[in-house]
Amino acid sequence: MNNTILIKNALILNLNNFENKKQSLLIKDDLIAEIAETIDEGNVDKIIDAEGKILLPGLINTHTHLSMTLFRGLADDLSLDSWLNDHIWPMEANLNGDYCYIGALLGAVELIKSGTTTFSDMYFYMEDVARAVEDAGIRAVLSYGMIDFGDAERREAEIEENLQLFKSCNGMADGRIKVFFGPHSPYTASEDLLIKVRELADEYNMGIHIHVSETEKEINDSLDERGLRPFEYLEKIGFLGPDVVAAHCVWLSDEEIEIIKKHDVKVSHNPCSNMKLASGIAPVSKLIENDICVSIGTDGASSNNNLDLIEELKTASLLQKVSTLDPKVLTSDEAITMATIKGAEALGLENEIGSIEVGKKADIILIDTNSANMVPDSSSLSSNVIYSANGSNVDTTICNGKILMENKKLTVLDEQEIYDKARKAIKELKEAI
Amino acid sequence: MNNTILIKNALILNLNNFENKKQSLLIKDDLIAEIAETIDEGNVDKIIDAEGKILLPGLINTHTHLSMTLFRGLADDLSLDSWLNDHIWPMEANLNGDYCYIGALLGAVELIKSGTTTFSDMYFYMEDVARAVEDAGIRAVLSYGMIDFGDAERREAEIEENLQLFKSCNGMADGRIKVFFGPHSPYTASEDLLIKVRELADEYNMGIHIHVSETEKEINDSLDERGLRPFEYLEKIGFLGPDVVAAHCVWLSDEEIEIIKKHDVKVSHNPCSNMKLASGIAPVSKLIENDICVSIGTDGASSNNNLDLIEELKTASLLQKVSTLDPKVLTSDEAITMATIKGAEALGLENEIGSIEVGKKADIILIDTNSANMVPDSSSLSSNVIYSANGSNVDTTICNGKILMENKKLTVLDEQEIYDKARKAIKELKEAI
Ligand SMILES: [Zn+2]
Ligand SMILES: [Zn+2]
Repeated sequence: MNNTILIKNALILNLNNFENKKQSLLIKDDLIAEIAETIDEGNVDKIIDAEGKILLPGLINTHTHLSMTLFRGLADDLSLDSWLNDHIWPMEANLNGDYCYIGALLGAVELIKSGTTTFSDMYFYMEDVARAVEDAGIRAVLSYGMIDFGDAERREAEIEENLQLFKSCNGMADGRIKVFFGPHSPYTASEDLLIKVRELADEYNMGIHIHVSETEKEINDSLDERGLRPFEYLEKIGFLGPDVVAAHCVWLSDEEIEIIKKHDVKVSHNPCSNMKLASGIAPVSKLIENDICVSIGTDGASSNNNLDLIEELKTASLLQKVSTLDPKVLTSDEAITMATIKGAEALGLENEIGSIEVGKKADIILIDTNSANMVPDSSSLSSNVIYSANGSNVDTTICNGKILMENKKLTVLDEQEIYDKARKAIKELKEAI
Repeated sequence: MNNTILIKNALILNLNNFENKKQSLLIKDDLIAEIAETIDEGNVDKIIDAEGKILLPGLINTHTHLSMTLFRGLADDLSLDSWLNDHIWPMEANLNGDYCYIGALLGAVELIKSGTTTFSDMYFYMEDVARAVEDAGIRAVLSYGMIDFGDAERREAEIEENLQLFKSCNGMADGRIKVFFGPHSPYTASEDLLIKVRELADEYNMGIHIHVSETEKEINDSLDERGLRPFEYLEKIGFLGPDVVAAHCVWLSDEEIEIIKKHDVKVSHNPCSNMKLASGIAPVSKLIENDICVSIGTDGASSNNNLDLIEELKTASLLQKVSTLDPKVLTSDEAITMATIKGAEALGLENEIGSIEVGKKADIILIDTNSANMVPDSSSLSSNVIYSANGSNVDTTICNGKILMENKKLTVLDEQEIYDKARKAIKELKEAI
C-alpha cells in the first residue's frame, strides 16, 4: 500500500522551467509519481494546497560541518589562525558523540526550517551524526575528516575510521545516508593518505570530500613545500577525479581551473565563510563559464553563522556581480541550479534528487510568496527566491516523501527540546575548558 | 494620562553595552521613561515579557525609495543602463500618488516586520508617502527627488515641489515625519540647483539627501565634464556640510575621503544594491577608520530585492572583510551602530532615536533568540543579530511608543489587504506600458 501526498496549485520552479504555471504533483511513498495540471484527489492520503507557493527541489548543501552548529557565534571578527587555535580547537578537544549528535540535530532543525533536505558533511563522531540524520528524516552524505600530518600510524587509524563509517552507515536510514571519504585537506592529510584514499575510493566506489585552496597562505605554503599549487599537486599524485568534491577553491590559477575542468572535479562554493574569515573571493563565474560543476555550501555555522542556503545563494550571486563588475553573471536561475541539480551531481545523486521529475525522490520544499519580502511576485520565480527571500520563507519541507515541516511547524523533531539540549551542551563544553 | 508599556527580562543591546544582562524598560507615551533591573508592574497598561529576546533600538535605513517596493524583481541581472532605461523608467512614467501610497505601505509592512522603524526616502509623490508613514506608524525623513538637467524652469518647479513638501509634511504624524531636500545627484541636478538647495537648506534648517559616486562611469563623466571628481566638485561649489547624507559613495579617492571628513558629510552605505548592480565596493572600513559617520541603507527593493536591514548589515560586514582580506574590520558591534546611532546622526535625530536611553523616543525592537538560526546564544548579542539572524527573527516592533508588531503579528496595518492592492497596482502598471 502506498502513502500518497498530493500537492496542488504549486508554482513549480524546475530546471529549464522557470515559469509561472500552477501544477499538481503526486508523491507515492518516497517518489515523485506524477506531475500534471490536475491530478485526481480521490484516493490520496493527504492534500497540500500550495496556492501562492513556489515548489522547488529540496536544497542541497554540499559543504558543512553540522555538529559545529553548537559553535555558532563562539568567536567572531578574528583571523582564521586565532579563531581556530584559541577558540574552535580547544572546544573540539572536548567533543564526544553525544555533543556531536545534539549539534547535528540542532543543525538539522535549521536545515529543515530553511529548506535544505540534503547536506554533505565532514567531521568527527560521524556515526552520531548519522543517528541525527536518521532521526531528523533528512538526507546526507557523510565523511570522516581524516588528518594524519604525515604520521603513518595515525593515517592507518584515520582511514580505518572512515572505512568503518562506510561499513556501518552507507545506505542506512532507508538509503538516505551515503558515505564519502573525507581527507581534510592537502595540508593536513599527507600524500600517502591521499593516494590511499584514491585507491580505496575506486575500490569501494565512494566519493571524496576535501577542503582545497581556501586561503592564500595555503597556496604559498604549498608552493614553498612542493613548488606546486594545491590542484597541481593533487593532479600530479593522481588524486583528482569526478568523484572529488573540493570545498572553497578560492585561490585558483587559470592552469588550476583547467585541471579542475579536465578531471571534472566538483566545486563547493562557500561565500559567507570565505567572506567572514576574509579568505577571498572564489572565481565562480569563471568556473561556470568553463562548464565546471559549482554547487553551494554554508561551511559550518561557526564561520557563517547560519545554515541558510537561500541567503548563501544571494550572497554568492551578488559577490560575483560586484567582484567582476558585471551584473549579468551568476543569475538567479544559475544560483538555483547550484543548490539543486549541481549539488546532486556533486554528490553523485543526480539520478535521485536535485530536480522535480517523475521517478526522482520526493525531496520538495514550498516557499510562501504571500510574505512581506516577496510581494509583488517578481518577473521570475528564481529572482523572487534568490534576491527577495531568505530561509524563513520556506513553509513546507518534504524529504524522501515524508513531511518534515508543514506551515512552518516541524512535524518530526521537537525543536524546543533540541534547543535546550544544545544550550546545555555548549555550556558544558565552555566549562570544560 | 500616560500610556505605559513595561518590557521585562530583555537583553538590551545598546551602544557601548553589548552585554548579556536582563533588564526592564518602561515606556511612557512616546518615550523611554526608565531602564532598571526591575520595575514595578503595578500600574502599567501593558507588560511584554521579553524572556530570551534581544532588545535594541528600532533600526534606521538611511537610503531607500519605499514606493519602489512595487518594482521588486521587475527586472534583474541587467546592467544599470538597461535596468533603468528598459524597465524602471517606463514604469515610473505611469506612477501616480495612489500607486506610490500603496508601494510605500507595502514597504512599510516589510520594514516593520524586519525591525526598521525609521527610513530616509527620496522619490516622487512624497505627500502620498507621508500618508503611508502616518498610517503605518513608523518614522521617516522624506525628500523629493529633484532633477533639472540644467533646465531653469524645471529647476524652479522642482525646488518648489520639495519646499511644498516641507511646508505640508515636516513635523506631521506626531512629529514622526521630517522633510529634507532631495537633489537626486550631481549628474542629474545642475550646479545652480545644488547651490540653491544649499542656500535654502541653511535658511530652513533642512537636511539634504543625495546620491553621490555610485558608479565608476559617474566619476569618469564628472572628470570629463569638469576635471573634478564628484566630491571635489561638490566641495568647490560650497554644497557640502554635516547636514548632507550622501548615498553610495562607492568610488572615492583618498582626497575625497578627506573632503567627506572635513565637511562631516554623512555616508549611507548600500552594499546589496551596489553588489547587485555591480557598481562596486565602497571603502567603508577606511571611512570608519577616518571617523566618518557611515550608516546603512537598502536602496530601493527594486535593486536589492528586499528591505531587510539585518541582512544588509551582514552583507556590509562580510563584504568589507573579504575586500580588505582582514576579518577584523566592520565587526558586529560596528555594524549595529551603523543601523542605530550612526543612522540617527545622519538624519539629525541623534537626540531622539538611535539608542536605548531614558528620554529618547520609544523606537524599540525585540529579536527572539529562541529560533533555529540563533541557538545557542553567541558570545555577543551583536554577533547573534548580525551574523546569525535575519529580519524574520524580529518579533516585536515599537515606534514612538506604539506597538506596530507583536509576536510577529502586525497590529496596525492589514498586511493581506496591502499585498492584494500592491499586486493589483503592479499589474495595472505593467498593462499600461
Ligand atoms: Zn569546511
Ligand atoms: Zn537610491
